[in-house]
Amino acid sequence: MEQITSFAQLKAHLTDNNFVKRIAVANAVDEHSSEAALKAVESGFAEVFLFGDAAKIPVSEQIKRQFADKIHIIDIPDVQQATEAAVLAVRQGDADVLMKGLVNTDVLLRAVLNKENGILPEGNVLSFCSVFEIPAYRKLLFFGDPAVIPSPSLAQREAIINYVAQTARKFGVVCPKIAMIHATEVANPKIQYMQDYIDIMEKYRAGAFPNIILDGPLDIFLALDKERGAIKNVPTPVLGDADGLIFPNFESANVFYKALISFAGAEMAGCLAGTSKPVVLTSRGDSAESKFNSIAMACVLS
Amino acid sequence: MEQITSFAQLKAHLTDNNFVKRIAVANAVDEHSSEAALKAVESGFAEVFLFGDAAKIPVSEQIKRQFADKIHIIDIPDVQQATEAAVLAVRQGDADVLMKGLVNTDVLLRAVLNKENGILPEGNVLSFCSVFEIPAYRKLLFFGDPAVIPSPSLAQREAIINYVAQTARKFGVVCPKIAMIHATEVANPKIQYMQDYIDIMEKYRAGAFPNIILDGPLDIFLALDKERGAIKNVPTPVLGDADGLIFPNFESANVFYKALISFAGAEMAGCLAGTSKPVVLTSRGDSAESKFNSIAMACVLS
Repeated sequence: MEQITSFAQLKAHLTDNNFVKRIAVANAVDEHSSEAALKAVESGFAEVFLFGDAAKIPVSEQIKRQFADKIHIIDIPDVQQATEAAVLAVRQGDADVLMKGLVNTDVLLRAVLNKENGILPEGNVLSFCSVFEIPAYRKLLFFGDPAVIPSPSLAQREAIINYVAQTARKFGVVCPKIAMIHATEVANPKIQYMQDYIDIMEKYRAGAFPNIILDGPLDIFLALDKERGAIKNVPTPVLGDADGLIFPNFESANVFYKALISFAGAEMAGCLAGTSKPVVLTSRGDSAESKFNSIAMACVLS
Repeated sequence: MEQITSFAQLKAHLTDNNFVKRIAVANAVDEHSSEAALKAVESGFAEVFLFGDAAKIPVSEQIKRQFADKIHIIDIPDVQQATEAAVLAVRQGDADVLMKGLVNTDVLLRAVLNKENGILPEGNVLSFCSVFEIPAYRKLLFFGDPAVIPSPSLAQREAIINYVAQTARKFGVVCPKIAMIHATEVANPKIQYMQDYIDIMEKYRAGAFPNIILDGPLDIFLALDKERGAIKNVPTPVLGDADGLIFPNFESANVFYKALISFAGAEMAGCLAGTSKPVVLTSRGDSAESKFNSIAMACVLS
């Protein structure tokens, strides 16, 4: 496949290839999640299963008629039961993507993590992977983890690298260049996470993490800015052309994407990573575009 | 004084008020530091004392003649001795600002920290304070610490708040609004630095940190983005209008400013904080504009 380098191309990829992914929405009784899911139906790449109190699920009769074969309402008035049923549908292969509706994230995660009926394979690290479009950058950027793991352990960091690489590959990046981010390119062993970076680079050189180009510590200039990175005279195969970023901790990832959304016109999509199928957790604060992009991302990953 | 809201205004403030600050440059034998210092002389707000090997200090005869009363060359060929002499000049009140020339940062810091002849008052925390101009933000932003203290202790964090507030005040911000940054507005006590934020807010409510408006944890949207911050419905007196940011650690501060320099056209200036007089540490990678702005910042602070 050709590399997807923008959200517009992501949408085109889904519609041009006639994908139809089945999305289970857990307690779809709020405008904001059902609207986003229905937009994916209208765009032609989704079929939705709306779990929740049927009387409260906001879908107009006209839309129901127009997409009768693509919109399914499963009437379960209890929030927790509706959530568990949506998760189970994904677990049993009746849906390809799980999406959070009007349900507390804790309740959703409990259902996702449930050993009997959940969708996190045993031993998998639960994390979050983002896709980011910065207008001034030449391609999409994949990164983790801005939301779930505050301060990753070594094993969690390795999992995050794999999730970022897998996500990039699903978007057609054959050999993603991934930078482990720090304030400088100097490995200062006094800093907690630096030993992880050193250990990971050793494993990488020994052949772990195949089919990626990995380097770190690198700062944002060396990772994303060819011109400013080059001034530093640091030899790195990533130099200003990263596809993926691994952040030291979730606060630096979070600062990164919010600053660029506010001041550089960036748009973000994101999914839980580690689950057997992608999980979309949009929140009320996300833009309509971001919600839609997250669903589209999940559909490509599933 | 009127609030300075851009680097252009900063320069105008210095020239309009006929300030002439004396800058001691430690080993001024490189083009990049001496050029920046001479630009401040040409702009009319600086007099420079260039310490180093006179034969190697790159000032043309024409410039020397033109600004004969503003350019002083102190011939000390040894790097360490030239550096110590520049620091001593500041300590003795013969200069208002110290600037790093072609000298290893470690050598400069040793001279700055020296108990007998240095310029760090006993008990002061050495940190770094930045001034940031983001084209899409309505005013200058002051923050710490992107460079010196990787993971501040409680006492260091308190010092950083005071440095950011003092810097903002020197730029005419009477009562700076300062946000302590995190990934969300929720105080999660499992995260190391969060206990510091909780303790600091308690002290703040008890009257410590007078004449600032302080809140945290807040995310970047709540601190800097009125529209996206408002969606979160979190009551905070800072809401999208911060003058100052305190970052959890230096990697998140570093990611913040480098991302916005690369992708949002931002420009940064910065100085060491905690010293008796400002210390400018520009590096070869900084843009000419950033070097000049850092000198101008130091001249306002001194």
